[in-house]
Amino acid sequence: MTADLARFSINQMTVKQLSLPELVDACGDLGVPGVGLWREPVQAYGVEAAAKLVRDAGLTVTTLCRGGFLTATAPGERAAALADNRRAVDEAATLGTDTLVLVSGGLPPGSRDLRAARERIADALAELAPYAEEHGVRLAIEPLHPMFASDRCVVSTLAQALDIAERFPAHQVGVTVDTYHIWWDDQAPAQIARAGASGRIHTFQLADWITPLPEGVLNGRGQIGDGAIDMREWRTYVEEAGYTGPIEIELFNDTLWTRDGREVLAETAARFAEHAG
Amino acid sequence: MTADLARFSINQMTVKQLSLPELVDACGDLGVPGVGLWREPVQAYGVEAAAKLVRDAGLTVTTLCRGGFLTATAPGERAAALADNRRAVDEAATLGTDTLVLVSGGLPPGSRDLRAARERIADALAELAPYAEEHGVRLAIEPLHPMFASDRCVVSTLAQALDIAERFPAHQVGVTVDTYHIWWDDQAPAQIARAGASGRIHTFQLADWITPLPEGVLNGRGQIGDGAIDMREWRTYVEEAGYTGPIEIELFNDTLWTRDGREVLAETAARFAEHAG
Repeated sequence: MTADLARFSINQMTVKQLSLPELVDACGDLGVPGVGLWREPVQAYGVEAAAKLVRDAGLTVTTLCRGGFLTATAPGERAAALADNRRAVDEAATLGTDTLVLVSGGLPPGSRDLRAARERIADALAELAPYAEEHGVRLAIEPLHPMFASDRCVVSTLAQALDIAERFPAHQVGVTVDTYHIWWDDQAPAQIARAGASGRIHTFQLADWITPLPEGVLNGRGQIGDGAIDMREWRTYVEEAGYTGPIEIELFNDTLWTRDGREVLAETAARFAEHAG
Repeated sequence: MTADLARFSINQMTVKQLSLPELVDACGDLGVPGVGLWREPVQAYGVEAAAKLVRDAGLTVTTLCRGGFLTATAPGERAAALADNRRAVDEAATLGTDTLVLVSGGLPPGSRDLRAARERIADALAELAPYAEEHGVRLAIEPLHPMFASDRCVVSTLAQALDIAERFPAHQVGVTVDTYHIWWDDQAPAQIARAGASGRIHTFQLADWITPLPEGVLNGRGQIGDGAIDMREWRTYVEEAGYTGPIEIELFNDTLWTRDGREVLAETAARFAEHAG
């Protein structure tokens, strides 16, 4: 591992064309010390088997993505979401990561009430956070870009995420700081300081902002260095706020997914070193 | 004109398939008292001729869209943008509207500095605002949704827009409140109150938020009532802030543009009455 990559972690979604063994193998070859994993491919491989694979390779699992989707109003849906999030906590604990990323969920069909949806997240966390603590897992609320507010995540800013997180102890609930979602927000640097002051920066993720956005806007995240975001500036904000943990690169990008996964991983590691290392 | 439509204004872009005479004619038939006009179709028709057309029909021109694009760094580009904005002020004055909507512009190619781009807007307004005042025109900075921050408008929130506007007298520079761009922002109601307190709500526009967003995200605004935004809630915010002016509906929507323009105008007026009247 080179010094430049000491804090680098590759989020599995960035190179989802690689199987889990391929990813672990490529990380070994390239000197990548950490991975952020996703539940679905881990479940498909087997959670215990995945845990052994990364452990035997000496890889750090920096996060598990993702829990959340806690905005349902129907009691049955809400109970199912909570049960699924408890399973996510269990999986995180099995994988040996201390951080479960939460994407809150969008508005229920027909609803126009963002405020009530945000309150339901807080209500759900009151049940989930103590369970997570018992299993040694911290929950990291991720504000998503406001363009996802209706259909994916009613928590759109770090300030909103912290307003919820601060109702709980920091070792139970913190936030995910992801450049892609917050780079436009002139309040975000102050909110990063706020998060850091109470020890609530549970993970730091990078993706670049490029346009035009694709239809549906989900899979248009840019490779580091290709877009509008000054990665070193944001790294400075989190470090001035006391964050010293891993830095994950998480790209959802249809074009990257068509390419050779090892090549994309090597490129991503190089971009990390160049723009954020 | 029915009482329900007393404050309704149709933004020309909503029914851009109609020629200016067709639009004016349809407004007369449907009892629509106001129109928000766009520079390009007005220029194509002739500014003086357009002014006479709407004046003779007894229509109020509620806004002219749009000036702005003031973020260039190259001196020649900056001078050209200022000259173009002075022409926009002249056109607004000729059309008899007191409000020119400003879309600030995106990052210059290769730039990653949103803060500096926002400062350049303030610098440009220092030149433009007195000129506008001399012509009886108020400038209305429009924050666009953060998904446009890099390529169209570096001003993403009402708070950012007011931070710039408040450097000038309210009769020179205020803001555009458009539901589409701010609906996700839990700080927006307080910022509307802030804007109203100093008389800076220069126009109020409606569009609904629907998903999935189309490629490029520009032309996916929803018809009123089709999406996630509670129009009456936002109307209440601006009215509690003292705004009593026209309410424009401005939709960029590829599907609406394929339909008969008169039919879309009639539908839009009906939706206004149902959801925001």
